[in-house]
Amino acid sequence: MASNPPAAADALLSAIAFDRDGLVPAVAQQHDSGEVLMLAWMNREALLKTLATGEAHYWSRSRRELWRKGQQSGQRQRLVEIKVDCDGDALLLLVDQTGVACHTGRRSCFYRVERSGALETIRPVAVDPAALYGKPEER
Amino acid sequence: MASNPPAAADALLSAIAFDRDGLVPAVAQQHDSGEVLMLAWMNREALLKTLATGEAHYWSRSRRELWRKGQQSGQRQRLVEIKVDCDGDALLLLVDQTGVACHTGRRSCFYRVERSGALETIRPVAVDPAALYGKPEER
Repeated sequence: MASNPPAAADALLSAIAFDRDGLVPAVAQQHDSGEVLMLAWMNREALLKTLATGEAHYWSRSRRELWRKGQQSGQRQRLVEIKVDCDGDALLLLVDQTGVACHTGRRSCFYRVERSGALETIRPVAVDPAALYGKPEER
Repeated sequence: MASNPPAAADALLSAIAFDRDGLVPAVAQQHDSGEVLMLAWMNREALLKTLATGEAHYWSRSRRELWRKGQQSGQRQRLVEIKVDCDGDALLLLVDQTGVACHTGRRSCFYRVERSGALETIRPVAVDPAALYGKPEER
């Protein structure tokens, strides 16, 4: 089941400067198109789960729980590779996103752009969120 | 001088959920190649300066000061557009990066990748940091 045993995470873990809450921001980018899909947070356990399963796991700061991306919605992220930045305080996950990354049903969470003082929505809803979630606050 | 007056930032500012330190993580992505260059932090002032000048400004958490990207190194980031995510707690800056984004002299700060339990450096130093900085801790 594990594509990468926990021991293999030592080098990565030791390079990461987790913040005072034990978290590090993780940017998820679609590996082939380069599209930035979302930013979420990982703790040590989320990182280990991600490496062990090959599927992105995050820490939900609002729900205060570990969360496998797509556990409610089915919109999973298969890990392609994981990069760490120069200071060890940010991660970049290259992933293969199933369907949509955003709980609003859009491919990317970054669907609003600043233009001439207004925020424009530039991405359509690709999947009805009601079809993804039993309850709208879950993702 | 200003490409975007401060008043134009109202819509964007009101969409952002700054954290308890008054900061929001900002991902800088090269606008044409899609390369993720770095993750840094913005406070309200950094965002206003970025919008007003068209050049990326960040808040340095270590130095506790506003910082124009490239102010020491000359490696500026011209703002192309700025996006905000669904929850308003992350920004995506599409930029045109002059030279290298990383203070190590590499194009991107994400130059280390996890492979089989080791961290591999996958990007070369493109510019000698000594040529960019008077002192190595400045960027």
